[in-house]
Amino acid sequence: MANSKKGIALAVALAMVLMGVLAAIFIQPLEAATSSLALSGDALLEEAFKFIKSIGIWFMLMLVAFLMLFIKKFEWGVCLAVLLSAASSFITYMAIQEFYFGNEWTSQMMVQASVAAITYVIAIGVFLGTVKQWHYFIGGIAFAIVYAAVEWIVCNFELFGTLTTDPGGSIMVHMCAAYFGLGVCLVLRVKDAFQEPMYTTTHSVSFVWLASMLLWVLWPCFVCGSLGMEDFALGAATCYMAGLGSIVSAYVVCMVCQKKVNPLTYTYAMLAGPVAIGAPLLSVNPWGALAIGLVAGAISAACFIYLQPWLCNKLGVLDVMGVHNLHGMAGWTGAFACAVVLFISGNVDGGLADIVMAVMIFAISLIGGAITGVILKLAKGKPMEMFSDDYDFIKNEEPEH
Amino acid sequence: MANSKKGIALAVALAMVLMGVLAAIFIQPLEAATSSLALSGDALLEEAFKFIKSIGIWFMLMLVAFLMLFIKKFEWGVCLAVLLSAASSFITYMAIQEFYFGNEWTSQMMVQASVAAITYVIAIGVFLGTVKQWHYFIGGIAFAIVYAAVEWIVCNFELFGTLTTDPGGSIMVHMCAAYFGLGVCLVLRVKDAFQEPMYTTTHSVSFVWLASMLLWVLWPCFVCGSLGMEDFALGAATCYMAGLGSIVSAYVVCMVCQKKVNPLTYTYAMLAGPVAIGAPLLSVNPWGALAIGLVAGAISAACFIYLQPWLCNKLGVLDVMGVHNLHGMAGWTGAFACAVVLFISGNVDGGLADIVMAVMIFAISLIGGAITGVILKLAKGKPMEMFSDDYDFIKNEEPEH
Amino acid sequence: MANSKKGIALAVALAMVLMGVLAAIFIQPLEAATSSLALSGDALLEEAFKFIKSIGIWFMLMLVAFLMLFIKKFEWGVCLAVLLSAASSFITYMAIQEFYFGNEWTSQMMVQASVAAITYVIAIGVFLGTVKQWHYFIGGIAFAIVYAAVEWIVCNFELFGTLTTDPGGSIMVHMCAAYFGLGVCLVLRVKDAFQEPMYTTTHSVSFVWLASMLLWVLWPCFVCGSLGMEDFALGAATCYMAGLGSIVSAYVVCMVCQKKVNPLTYTYAMLAGPVAIGAPLLSVNPWGALAIGLVAGAISAACFIYLQPWLCNKLGVLDVMGVHNLHGMAGWTGAFACAVVLFISGNVDGGLADIVMAVMIFAISLIGGAITGVILKLAKGKPMEMFSDDYDFIKNEEPEH
Repeated sequence: MANSKKGIALAVALAMVLMGVLAAIFIQPLEAATSSLALSGDALLEEAFKFIKSIGIWFMLMLVAFLMLFIKKFEWGVCLAVLLSAASSFITYMAIQEFYFGNEWTSQMMVQASVAAITYVIAIGVFLGTVKQWHYFIGGIAFAIVYAAVEWIVCNFELFGTLTTDPGGSIMVHMCAAYFGLGVCLVLRVKDAFQEPMYTTTHSVSFVWLASMLLWVLWPCFVCGSLGMEDFALGAATCYMAGLGSIVSAYVVCMVCQKKVNPLTYTYAMLAGPVAIGAPLLSVNPWGALAIGLVAGAISAACFIYLQPWLCNKLGVLDVMGVHNLHGMAGWTGAFACAVVLFISGNVDGGLADIVMAVMIFAISLIGGAITGVILKLAKGKPMEMFSDDYDFIKNEEPEH
Repeated sequence: MANSKKGIALAVALAMVLMGVLAAIFIQPLEAATSSLALSGDALLEEAFKFIKSIGIWFMLMLVAFLMLFIKKFEWGVCLAVLLSAASSFITYMAIQEFYFGNEWTSQMMVQASVAAITYVIAIGVFLGTVKQWHYFIGGIAFAIVYAAVEWIVCNFELFGTLTTDPGGSIMVHMCAAYFGLGVCLVLRVKDAFQEPMYTTTHSVSFVWLASMLLWVLWPCFVCGSLGMEDFALGAATCYMAGLGSIVSAYVVCMVCQKKVNPLTYTYAMLAGPVAIGAPLLSVNPWGALAIGLVAGAISAACFIYLQPWLCNKLGVLDVMGVHNLHGMAGWTGAFACAVVLFISGNVDGGLADIVMAVMIFAISLIGGAITGVILKLAKGKPMEMFSDDYDFIKNEEPEH
Repeated sequence: MANSKKGIALAVALAMVLMGVLAAIFIQPLEAATSSLALSGDALLEEAFKFIKSIGIWFMLMLVAFLMLFIKKFEWGVCLAVLLSAASSFITYMAIQEFYFGNEWTSQMMVQASVAAITYVIAIGVFLGTVKQWHYFIGGIAFAIVYAAVEWIVCNFELFGTLTTDPGGSIMVHMCAAYFGLGVCLVLRVKDAFQEPMYTTTHSVSFVWLASMLLWVLWPCFVCGSLGMEDFALGAATCYMAGLGSIVSAYVVCMVCQKKVNPLTYTYAMLAGPVAIGAPLLSVNPWGALAIGLVAGAISAACFIYLQPWLCNKLGVLDVMGVHNLHGMAGWTGAFACAVVLFISGNVDGGLADIVMAVMIFAISLIGGAITGVILKLAKGKPMEMFSDDYDFIKNEEPEH
């Protein structure tokens, strides 16, 4: 027995070594990606900042895992799912850019790939715990294709003669994440998910607080991901002010509607401001951003309380992590807020473009998700235990006396 | 019932939308805050670093919450209190600067506002858990006014013909925080706080370790908050060396005085070096900073063990998080250490200025805190359950079998 | 009683104050370390990045503590050990550089010192929990001497007429850490360590996930620690791609060999890619790095499963945290991968230099560790309780009803 296992391990290890050697031969030690060698001054500074933004966005990606591990019996599985998701979506996105579009590997492309990865990590929240670990990996490949298309459309497709205003990704990232996830979920149709108890503990929820609060802090890295350095000052200002808005309004709505605060409503809804500010990031001043944050936090909290049960019942599927209430609804809020601001400043075409683009991305993401859902359904295999670390992990707990 | 709640939620949401629209109309989409557009070279680099420092200080602010959540039955409430405190103090500080002093919104001002917010978050530690959540919000408004005054005085008021030497905020931040909090606490006089058991668990204290260790790491962002880039190298060197000093001496004092380490003494006292180095940050070399850190850590640990019970008994109020032992005592240590260094280097006026300024800030903060305490007392309302998440939050724990 | 304790505390405090005053007198307030004052442009940017890298590496150092606190009854002790280790190794390293080698205190030296400190923190993982807290402090002094020698050799000693290729520290950091720790462990010979149960809980392991995932994210700060800014782009690209490789292959090996994932194998082995990429960091392109990461993750996971029990049994000592499986084995992998890449690109001397250097560092670290082990053994004193917070800390848990 032990020997056969050793044999398998050896075989796997050998196969990987072989693969490694092959890769090392085919892909020569290269001079590419060192094009920054020639940089100096402001260009070097820009490049340096891409390094920092990459780290910031990856940091946020990992925190998203902790934002989702409130179910005590399903914590480590969330972490593993996030890691496998990030790996497949990041690698696939990079491969598409380099080998399909023929782009050179740059720091900016790595920032974009980490945004693609975090978008997929948000998306899996909708059906988290209802599929097997390797399904997240497969889904990431499909997602990267969908996202590369979405990104191309948002950045290049003109509507009413103008490009979409979405520097911080309300539409491209958050709506795409929510509706891709929902598309997968609608096809998978895991009805039993409704029956599963999702008990929390003090500390599983404390991890969620930690994640939510640090995500809030790091958010400027994310919304400024594709901006030039000259826009950082305004981006950070509006991002934080919108975030302070949702910190306050989510609390007010929780207290007004439920007399007490549900931490699993509040810790998510307090991020609605930074989600919604993505589109109007550079179109408002900090006080306008505060107002948008107040609105977004209120809407998101209200959706957790009232929309979530109604919608899940209507659709017949459970949005496990309530992704739609945060990323979906605050994404729409951002798109509309940006349109309103553009209307006020006389740019009617720009405002309409944002709204139409939001609808388009809603549709594309939902369909892309549904197709991915079909793939996952075909690959489903044996039934599994949902929302459970016991299904995936070896534990070593103290036996009860 | 459910309908009336939906009505309320709708009303709240509508009110906020209205507020948002109003804000968007009155505060036009602006070109301000984009003054960095014209920057390049060293100026752009400075600007970029303010972006990073902002994030670093906000990160620390959130970690302060986790530094304070060792009471197992009162973890989430600490997080919520920190968020509401940060929101009101940051927004009010910014409003004062922009609308009262007439300053333009800049990245440097955002750094200062985040310092103001973290100062208030430290201050609430003194009375944390003894007032209602929305009191922290109200208190933040009052605090921002006091802090704006304190900041103005420290930065502009000459004593003995010289400005105060406090680049890293030993006096302006830490003493202000400790004595403002104590001022509030002295007026509130919540005697019952002494009776409350404050049981910890392994993991609630592990969160405190995490917070303390990461705060220690991020401290250079904070002490270099208002410095130019050319002082970062020395600031980071002295900050870390002082921190290493208190890591060692706090351990020694804990072991000598109590034979074992009380984690809730050590995790705080190990931060005394970085607190105390604030004032002499740029006036000593790294080895001098190590010495100051050794002294500060020893003093702070000894204060947790001996001063805290005596002082709380004397004052008749409980310093819930022991804020005074860290920020108060290490603040004084920093002010005196800086004075000693200035004396040695022949700058007697500078040394005296630091000591007199420390006394002034002590008085102003205490009085400002007391006035805020009166406001909170007037707003007190129904009695509440202290140090309790049950009072504020909806829980979803597994029923015991 | 209480008085005598107060007396001791007073004495300690006084001694430290005295030490502080002496330090302040002997080491004058200085102008040194402010040499950056004259910098501007690219040089100032380099300097600024050293500030950020310092913080990043210290952040990782603290996370290493959380990577090692999965044993529920031994969490706080790990944190304290890490802090004391970091303090003594950092301070000693700096003292050696400044007072022995006569180097000026610079930002670059601080980055190197933080690398030295994290290397020692990794090393203590081998014998963590089997010695007393102050032993970690003593060991850090010895380690800093060994490491200063190792660093000098790797950076200056030519083999086959060429310097070693190890920009990201596969050999200098990871192999040094693993074999220094093993050297200590072999001399200490704490046989009882095998008998100790090491029970985990959901949340103690969730902290490990947090640490592992964030270490993964921050790794570019570490591998780019001694690089110029122009190499950051490639360094970050290969580091992340190698990391994605080990995320995937560690999972595959865990599932193939054990049907389920052991989180204490996976959370470590997923870091093998970033460890192994240290040597070939700038010699491969991102896809080559992915291949190396795949290989390293597979090897490391297989070593946790098969090599660890066999080796520990053979050596008669327990590698408590499995340091050798991650840092030792992935270090070798990195050295050989780099050699292979150099061979392929025709640089046979360079390849041989890497392998011979790896063997040399293996030997030097092992011997240095063994000598340190002898010192610790001489200082051993009374027997202690292993892997236990109760031995070191005062607790305040709720009494069971």
